Amino acid sequence: MFINIIDKHISLKPTEVADAEPLFDLVDANRDYLHPWMPWVDATATVQDEHNFIERMLTKQAKGEIFIATIVVDGEVAGMIDIHNISAINHRGEVGYWLGQDFVGKGVMTKSLERVEEIAFTELDLHKLSVGADVNNKNSRGVVERRQYHQDATLRENILVNEEYRDEVIYSLTVDEWSKRRDD
Amino acid sequence: MFINIIDKHISLKPTEVADAEPLFDLVDANRDYLHPWMPWVDATATVQDEHNFIERMLTKQAKGEIFIATIVVDGEVAGMIDIHNISAINHRGEVGYWLGQDFVGKGVMTKSLERVEEIAFTELDLHKLSVGADVNNKNSRGVVERRQYHQDATLRENILVNEEYRDEVIYSLTVDEWSKRRDD
Amino acid sequence: MFINIIDKHISLKPTEVADAEPLFDLVDANRDYLHPWMPWVDATATVQDEHNFIERMLTKQAKGEIFIATIVVDGEVAGMIDIHNISAINHRGEVGYWLGQDFVGKGVMTKSLERVEEIAFTELDLHKLSVGADVNNKNSRGVVERRQYHQDATLRENILVNEEYRDEVIYSLTVDEWSKRRDD
Amino acid sequence: MFINIIDKHISLKPTEVADAEPLFDLVDANRDYLHPWMPWVDATATVQDEHNFIERMLTKQAKGEIFIATIVVDGEVAGMIDIHNISAINHRGEVGYWLGQDFVGKGVMTKSLERVEEIAFTELDLHKLSVGADVNNKNSRGVVERRQYHQDATLRENILVNEEYRDEVIYSLTVDEWSKRRDD
Amino acid sequence: MFINIIDKHISLKPTEVADAEPLFDLVDANRDYLHPWMPWVDATATVQDEHNFIERMLTKQAKGEIFIATIVVDGEVAGMIDIHNISAINHRGEVGYWLGQDFVGKGVMTKSLERVEEIAFTELDLHKLSVGADVNNKNSRGVVERRQYHQDATLRENILVNEEYRDEVIYSLTVDEWSKRRDD
Amino acid sequence: MFINIIDKHISLKPTEVADAEPLFDLVDANRDYLHPWMPWVDATATVQDEHNFIERMLTKQAKGEIFIATIVVDGEVAGMIDIHNISAINHRGEVGYWLGQDFVGKGVMTKSLERVEEIAFTELDLHKLSVGADVNNKNSRGVVERRQYHQDATLRENILVNEEYRDEVIYSLTVDEWSKRRDD
Repeated sequence: MFINIIDKHISLKPTEVADAEPLFDLVDANRDYLHPWMPWVDATATVQDEHNFIERMLTKQAKGEIFIATIVVDGEVAGMIDIHNISAINHRGEVGYWLGQDFVGKGVMTKSLERVEEIAFTELDLHKLSVGADVNNKNSRGVVERRQYHQDATLRENILVNEEYRDEVIYSLTVDEWSKRRDD
Repeated sequence: MFINIIDKHISLKPTEVADAEPLFDLVDANRDYLHPWMPWVDATATVQDEHNFIERMLTKQAKGEIFIATIVVDGEVAGMIDIHNISAINHRGEVGYWLGQDFVGKGVMTKSLERVEEIAFTELDLHKLSVGADVNNKNSRGVVERRQYHQDATLRENILVNEEYRDEVIYSLTVDEWSKRRDD
Repeated sequence: MFINIIDKHISLKPTEVADAEPLFDLVDANRDYLHPWMPWVDATATVQDEHNFIERMLTKQAKGEIFIATIVVDGEVAGMIDIHNISAINHRGEVGYWLGQDFVGKGVMTKSLERVEEIAFTELDLHKLSVGADVNNKNSRGVVERRQYHQDATLRENILVNEEYRDEVIYSLTVDEWSKRRDD
Repeated sequence: MFINIIDKHISLKPTEVADAEPLFDLVDANRDYLHPWMPWVDATATVQDEHNFIERMLTKQAKGEIFIATIVVDGEVAGMIDIHNISAINHRGEVGYWLGQDFVGKGVMTKSLERVEEIAFTELDLHKLSVGADVNNKNSRGVVERRQYHQDATLRENILVNEEYRDEVIYSLTVDEWSKRRDD
Repeated sequence: MFINIIDKHISLKPTEVADAEPLFDLVDANRDYLHPWMPWVDATATVQDEHNFIERMLTKQAKGEIFIATIVVDGEVAGMIDIHNISAINHRGEVGYWLGQDFVGKGVMTKSLERVEEIAFTELDLHKLSVGADVNNKNSRGVVERRQYHQDATLRENILVNEEYRDEVIYSLTVDEWSKRRDD
Repeated sequence: MFINIIDKHISLKPTEVADAEPLFDLVDANRDYLHPWMPWVDATATVQDEHNFIERMLTKQAKGEIFIATIVVDGEVAGMIDIHNISAINHRGEVGYWLGQDFVGKGVMTKSLERVEEIAFTELDLHKLSVGADVNNKNSRGVVERRQYHQDATLRENILVNEEYRDEVIYSLTVDEWSKRRDD
């Protein structure tokens, strides 16, 4: 339908209700892989759960509260990337993302994040993007570090996953850092 | 952000709240041109009206009731195309479209409609698209005729524009006609 | 409660929540008869479904979007007639109707439609009424033909009933035709 | 549209949005007359206020919370009668009513109330109707007394009209009293 | 969290969602005791029912339609007291209350009601409080009689509990009576 | 009505709609003082704005999303303290607070925060409280520092006040730190 082509393998598409089935299948095939990091995995028990989630997100997007996209790799639904908690007052938002295990380790998320930065800073009028990652989530941290985000903080015991409180590392990138880097 | 490239000049993009300003400017610059055919022109008096319209449409799109896109020509917002009254029971929808006057006569809408047909029949699982046009609206009728729609009917006194009841011609294209034509 | 008496046997009453039970019983006793033409039959599985349907319809009627009435024959609930998709902009609406099989063939619907026309053109300020009927639904087409509606069109493959796309014939009656006929 | 004929002059009709204009005109012509008894008179400043009131009431009626009717005398809108605070648990409701001054003193309200009793006890499945009247409102009290309601109580300082707390007399009629009287 | 201390044993606290569990447990342990007087006992089948009830009540309280408090005795949740049907127009409300059986006969409710009167007349700007009690409910009537409410009326067959219509006694206290008594 | 007494001068009360007027008066008298730090000051232009804000907050509180209290000093409304962005999944929330200038410098907020910690950790089942403060807001930072919060991070350019992006310092206190300190 619509697309944002990143390279010959990777693209983003606007998440739509019709994505419920492939996204649910992807979550379902990756329960063990995603479970340690994603608190929402257990709550996604049926295609209808995913459908309802997408409908809720698109309704929020209609009000400008979030931005959400489906990541497609070689024609297959591979994961999601979003900007949530968009503050219209403070011009910032928090990026979230996940991939199915088969798509990890190929630069897919780093390139997807790069593209979302461009959208955030040139189209959504944001001043800063933040990313929070479980301190032990190497994959997730690797993505933002490759994108050279500034490591701002470790927020202690900030996320509860599998009945354990974990520290969360907060990274950020401002529009000025982002423009400067592009000019170089 | 996202795009559906039609040719090197023309593309579709998912309508978003940020389009309110360029769309309003386009309507505002084309009031005299659009007024004879479009009953909504007078109700679009401010950017906020357009903003509210888009937010309402995106909320409907989140539920799968409509599909809406902004037409872009050489980087400029040129008009809109949508599928409304999508019937999930009967797998059909009605296409609506309009262009600013500067973009008329260059095949923009014919190509946009062609692309929307592809989206409707391969992604939205529709069986038939209909288009209704004021019997005297040559531009609008020309578009569907160039796309070889079947002329189904003239519905008498079906639309009220500028205090006059006008006949509306109904055209349609089924998924079977569409596929057959592509196979030829 | 309220009534619109048509003749000594037939009357219309405003549909109300208390009609849920007799209407459900009527649908339930006529499943085989209604099923070939009415896509909603299967979705009406319990009295509560009918109750919810009526509550939704009355809420729409409170906003002027529809008109709905229960048809009563010799004190028994016999069917329904409504005007839906009322367009306040274009001053038109679409009439729908159904009867239990025992009440068919006695002129009940023809007289009910005649009365609804009067309501539409003298009280609801409509300019045109349309009726769509499955091309093979002789009962339904007979009603509008006896009321001398103009046959406007056959819309191809317009309704999906029992997994088959069927053509729909569209009839209409304008306020001018209706008044002229009454003057004769 | 629909009617409940009481005698050759008086009838009830289901209140509908289209009644907003004649009802507003009636209130507007009777401000001085209604003001001493009706706390809502000042809040009914425009036709739109009346329209909004009716839409709110019809939405409540769709849920079975109230019953509302317009009183018509010789083809003219003359007033309203309703049952509000309908308790589905306790099977009771409170009757409210008002007439334009020109229609007072002719038995219109007494006959209208009689008809509403019949609706309440035979169709709405109520067990008791109550009426509350300002202790000094002779017209209002006369209506229920002619209908032989039982005077249950005087509730002290129960209504605030024109910055003065007034006593309210409560009358009631049970379904058993009502049936017995009809049998006599 | 917050408290309104009545004496060294008894206090009121703002009802909150976290009260759902202790309140449900109290209802559950007192089903036989409460059932003869409280129509809502059967509908409170699970903690979630109580949770939903509290959430609905707090939403109404946010709009000023009710006031609700949990009664605590020696640190244990003992019952509830509320003012419902608050009329902003007439400056009155109706008090409701219930206690678990273990807490009855110790003056808990009489003192709680006294405190609620103070809140109603000094903070909620009410002019009159009413209490309705099943004519046979000696405990409930004892509370208002000890608080010297004026007995206004017996409303015949006003409440339906366990399939029997019962008379309800209405008591009231005006702000003037309340102030005068405090001055004495 | 309800109270949480902190010392003989200071107490918290549940914010209610009736606080709209004194809270608005306080904001109005402190516009210059609050403006440099509080982005919402300009949007609080009338008592009705404050009323709407409170109603929105109480509706959120009914769902357990926030906790909000009015600070009272010697019987006068002095400010507010709240916990917002309560995460039921991660058991944390963010504390916000403000005082009128006359009440600053007397330990009011430090004691209020201490009391809110107790509510958060013993009643709201939270695991961690965070406080964010403009890096230059000495008053605000002083409060958390006196309460010995851990300084977790400085989030760069995180708040936009008066058209300038400012850094925000994030402090936090976990339930374990809080309990340990009380045991000492």
